[in-house]
Amino acid sequence: MLFPPDHTTWYLEVITPDLVHASGLKKIFHQGQTPFQHAQVLETGSYGRMLVLDGKTQSSEADEWVYHEGLVQPVMVAHPNPRTVFIAGGGEGATAREVLRHRTVTKCVMVDLDKEVVDLCKQYLPNHHAGAFDDPRLTLLHDDALKYLEDTDEHFDVIIIDIPDPLEGGPAWLLYTVDFYKLVQRRLNPGGLTVLQSGPCGPVNYTDVFTAIHKTVATAFHHVHPYRVYMPAFVSTWGFQAAGMADSPDLGKISAEEIDRRIAERLASPLRYYDGIAHHGLLGLPKYVRDGMKAETRVITRDNPIFFV
Amino acid sequence: MLFPPDHTTWYLEVITPDLVHASGLKKIFHQGQTPFQHAQVLETGSYGRMLVLDGKTQSSEADEWVYHEGLVQPVMVAHPNPRTVFIAGGGEGATAREVLRHRTVTKCVMVDLDKEVVDLCKQYLPNHHAGAFDDPRLTLLHDDALKYLEDTDEHFDVIIIDIPDPLEGGPAWLLYTVDFYKLVQRRLNPGGLTVLQSGPCGPVNYTDVFTAIHKTVATAFHHVHPYRVYMPAFVSTWGFQAAGMADSPDLGKISAEEIDRRIAERLASPLRYYDGIAHHGLLGLPKYVRDGMKAETRVITRDNPIFFV
Amino acid sequence: MLFPPDHTTWYLEVITPDLVHASGLKKIFHQGQTPFQHAQVLETGSYGRMLVLDGKTQSSEADEWVYHEGLVQPVMVAHPNPRTVFIAGGGEGATAREVLRHRTVTKCVMVDLDKEVVDLCKQYLPNHHAGAFDDPRLTLLHDDALKYLEDTDEHFDVIIIDIPDPLEGGPAWLLYTVDFYKLVQRRLNPGGLTVLQSGPCGPVNYTDVFTAIHKTVATAFHHVHPYRVYMPAFVSTWGFQAAGMADSPDLGKISAEEIDRRIAERLASPLRYYDGIAHHGLLGLPKYVRDGMKAETRVITRDNPIFFV
Amino acid sequence: MLFPPDHTTWYLEVITPDLVHASGLKKIFHQGQTPFQHAQVLETGSYGRMLVLDGKTQSSEADEWVYHEGLVQPVMVAHPNPRTVFIAGGGEGATAREVLRHRTVTKCVMVDLDKEVVDLCKQYLPNHHAGAFDDPRLTLLHDDALKYLEDTDEHFDVIIIDIPDPLEGGPAWLLYTVDFYKLVQRRLNPGGLTVLQSGPCGPVNYTDVFTAIHKTVATAFHHVHPYRVYMPAFVSTWGFQAAGMADSPDLGKISAEEIDRRIAERLASPLRYYDGIAHHGLLGLPKYVRDGMKAETRVITRDNPIFFV
Repeated sequence: MLFPPDHTTWYLEVITPDLVHASGLKKIFHQGQTPFQHAQVLETGSYGRMLVLDGKTQSSEADEWVYHEGLVQPVMVAHPNPRTVFIAGGGEGATAREVLRHRTVTKCVMVDLDKEVVDLCKQYLPNHHAGAFDDPRLTLLHDDALKYLEDTDEHFDVIIIDIPDPLEGGPAWLLYTVDFYKLVQRRLNPGGLTVLQSGPCGPVNYTDVFTAIHKTVATAFHHVHPYRVYMPAFVSTWGFQAAGMADSPDLGKISAEEIDRRIAERLASPLRYYDGIAHHGLLGLPKYVRDGMKAETRVITRDNPIFFV
Repeated sequence: MLFPPDHTTWYLEVITPDLVHASGLKKIFHQGQTPFQHAQVLETGSYGRMLVLDGKTQSSEADEWVYHEGLVQPVMVAHPNPRTVFIAGGGEGATAREVLRHRTVTKCVMVDLDKEVVDLCKQYLPNHHAGAFDDPRLTLLHDDALKYLEDTDEHFDVIIIDIPDPLEGGPAWLLYTVDFYKLVQRRLNPGGLTVLQSGPCGPVNYTDVFTAIHKTVATAFHHVHPYRVYMPAFVSTWGFQAAGMADSPDLGKISAEEIDRRIAERLASPLRYYDGIAHHGLLGLPKYVRDGMKAETRVITRDNPIFFV
Repeated sequence: MLFPPDHTTWYLEVITPDLVHASGLKKIFHQGQTPFQHAQVLETGSYGRMLVLDGKTQSSEADEWVYHEGLVQPVMVAHPNPRTVFIAGGGEGATAREVLRHRTVTKCVMVDLDKEVVDLCKQYLPNHHAGAFDDPRLTLLHDDALKYLEDTDEHFDVIIIDIPDPLEGGPAWLLYTVDFYKLVQRRLNPGGLTVLQSGPCGPVNYTDVFTAIHKTVATAFHHVHPYRVYMPAFVSTWGFQAAGMADSPDLGKISAEEIDRRIAERLASPLRYYDGIAHHGLLGLPKYVRDGMKAETRVITRDNPIFFV
Repeated sequence: MLFPPDHTTWYLEVITPDLVHASGLKKIFHQGQTPFQHAQVLETGSYGRMLVLDGKTQSSEADEWVYHEGLVQPVMVAHPNPRTVFIAGGGEGATAREVLRHRTVTKCVMVDLDKEVVDLCKQYLPNHHAGAFDDPRLTLLHDDALKYLEDTDEHFDVIIIDIPDPLEGGPAWLLYTVDFYKLVQRRLNPGGLTVLQSGPCGPVNYTDVFTAIHKTVATAFHHVHPYRVYMPAFVSTWGFQAAGMADSPDLGKISAEEIDRRIAERLASPLRYYDGIAHHGLLGLPKYVRDGMKAETRVITRDNPIFFV
């Protein structure tokens, strides 16, 4: 018997046609179609509990804190006083959890299309949301985030876009266009910041979508800081774009000491990934990624979309 | 996306260090240690619901009827009037189901060591037992079948040995020795028959355990008929030995027509695999298997056990 | 380290979307496109050297003798005096090897479309052809077997159809139609026999193509004997159809003793799988296969083809 | 057909008992035992040509430049005038390639135990060594690097330790002890620097060996800078330790501009990963890694070794 019996069941993710990643599977809490996508909640030996949508890992207990601190904290800490926050997507509740750590926040609106996925996360991923869904500052809506932002006249200090990759036929690709980013900009308060997940960013795949999303965000905003974190469960480093207008804070100009001071002052609970030193490490991208962004010419529009395959 | 999302979860069975068999996994009903072995009840796309013990598939909805008809019916039909039957093992309840199809049977004693496994089968494998556990003719005991047969003074018309492979450290290997087969012989009524599963029997593995078990049974009984069925979920043809004493019926000498007549007369419900033509097909083993049995010299004893790896 | 280092390389065959079979890979002798198909010659720990076409195992050293004896010997032995033989396909040379064992044979014409595949087999599969390509009685041509049989006015005692499964877009599907079988019949000498491989025939897949091919052959010939052998490298029992006209021998009516006598008399070298007992074992198909053939209504034509997926 | 035919052959690496990484396999250039270890040279679709030792990927064409620039350039550029360099291991020749880019270097001694592995790399990995083995400044020896450093009275400006992970029974574990690091220190010229690969450093495995190696190096040297790069083919971020004495340059105190100036001045060919911005990104480790190093108490000695499993 080569495999111990607990390892006879496996979760396989086809990362590319040439690359398959397999994790020892302990439990299948759920798998099935929702009105919008195929959803699975699994428990693996390597990554703990995981949310998988349309066959792609969305987050795992083992490293979701890397992703969610990396997504949320740089812009939240850079903002001088984030009071109102909008989250597009974020079904696991962990993005809201990171936002709500900030004592400054009075209102967080989270709009996630897929109620079934959010309900699965509420039930099976308690370590992800950590009670965020019960925070009275949170308003949870199930709607199209694009439509919501078009219809509302609200403005926010921070807008966080935490949605699945732009898969062809999937629910998310319209939220990766320059038109959507311009809409986001119009819904920010003066001095506001936005941040979005922007796909894999390792040595072999940074030009798949990361550099094109960067170019597109750079077209819609005054300044944009690309950065990345290493996510084992995604089998890649994962990219983000933090963007603002002329009057927004510049993430590259905040000292490590000021970041540590703000964290100590504002946050109700400690962080694991992010602090002042980590912040400047995040921004120090390798030459190949920066060269890739310089060479990129694609601006994503409804008529010229990109899809992640 | 190469795999459809339903196929991101897989059950892998290491057949040999050089051979792995993977089935799309739909549900994990249970996996964990019992007092005796590691047990899993899974549902796969290829084989339906499956019982897996110590990492080895024991049976699946897709082909358990091949195995259980193949194990039970040749001796039951060959016996002129089977009234009392003993089953060693048979946890799924499907061996009992095949026995209890026979209107002649008045009493079936099933002794399976592992109550937890039997309870899992009762709960999760209704298509296997098909109500057999509720038949008033069945007596179910949880004990060591060897010890039970040593201690009892009962005799049976048919004794069916339906236990896991002889794995080192597993619960079953003592029931593959010549001493055990002699004990079985003593517990048969005059004219009685026994049958046992005897491991894989394909072109590359028939000498692993099949020929040695055949040789051992032939040492303890007057005559023995080896045969095999093809079991996809076991990734092999699977061997059996049907054995009797001088006064027992000879499986090779019953005509196909007589078999069909007995089935029509005695059975309460129709069969899928077994009838007169299939019976004689079963007995017509390829030359390589018969050559392997001729060349075999191993007789399995407590001091010279064989283990399946 | 769970896998020994020699087992870090694997050959995976997708049997169905729900079933993957993996063999430890030792060598890749060749992989690439020919003018007709994708071809691989591999060496695995489980099956030795293998020919794989369009991702499907065609034969392996470990069990090709089961397939090739099973395909060739029943009709060759049943024929009272096979002198001329036609082989459609048979690229490995092992079908020719089995034919040429018969001292009665004076001429064997083998027509295989794909010269590159035959050349790979000549070079890398010496245990398959065992010198058959050098036998002066063999005529090897690279052409479309259907076209060859249409254009020729030769007749043969035995015609053996040993071609890949009917894959959509593959080179073989037209050779599974009733029109082709009628053509084969016209090219047989009086009293001649034909045999063809006819796809997987296990408990879960016998109605995929086996029963439809049987029905189609039965439409074109006077009598047909379906049978099957267990092929580990194909992960199934594998089906054949042996067919003849009113004046052809009936495979079901030859005694085991007569078969053994003919083998001893005619063959230059001994067999491993086939003899008189094995012959009648082959013909004794399980009830489920025979029920499937009875229920089958599909007759395969150019306009109503079937494809194996 | 789910997999395209080119993807029926795969290279599987068992990263942990719970994690398997599979790459589409195109060619097996070599696999077999050397006197010291099991060695494979493979070509995969995902990573190009790869060297695998004892079942662990050592480097791949797709990302070896990340590893080798990351290993070599920070200390080489930080050193004011690196003239003599010692490499322990470095079989692929890519570490030597990075060293020899520096016009300042007059002598590079590379001591790799396993001549067979080096010969395989010379033959099959031309894009790795890029001619480095032909550079007259290189002296290549096949010996135990520890023994060589003990026996020599040479001193070097930079010592680079590029050896396999400390596997139990493998050839490398003694080169991860505090005694070896003290020996390295004695063989450095005044102001010299050393650097070593120090195992995986992702969110789920940074305490396996990375923090213990850091603690051990910190015990032997005056200052040590830990850093990491993301290596897809290693399925992790990968750690390094750059260390020096009181009179050695401090990697944290060189400005990005000075680094870019030195690269422009000294290097004969451009880099892909490393420059001034990337340098400071490398040093900005996440909080969890720094917390792990603070909490670490293990110092590796011959009597208290650590092994990577």
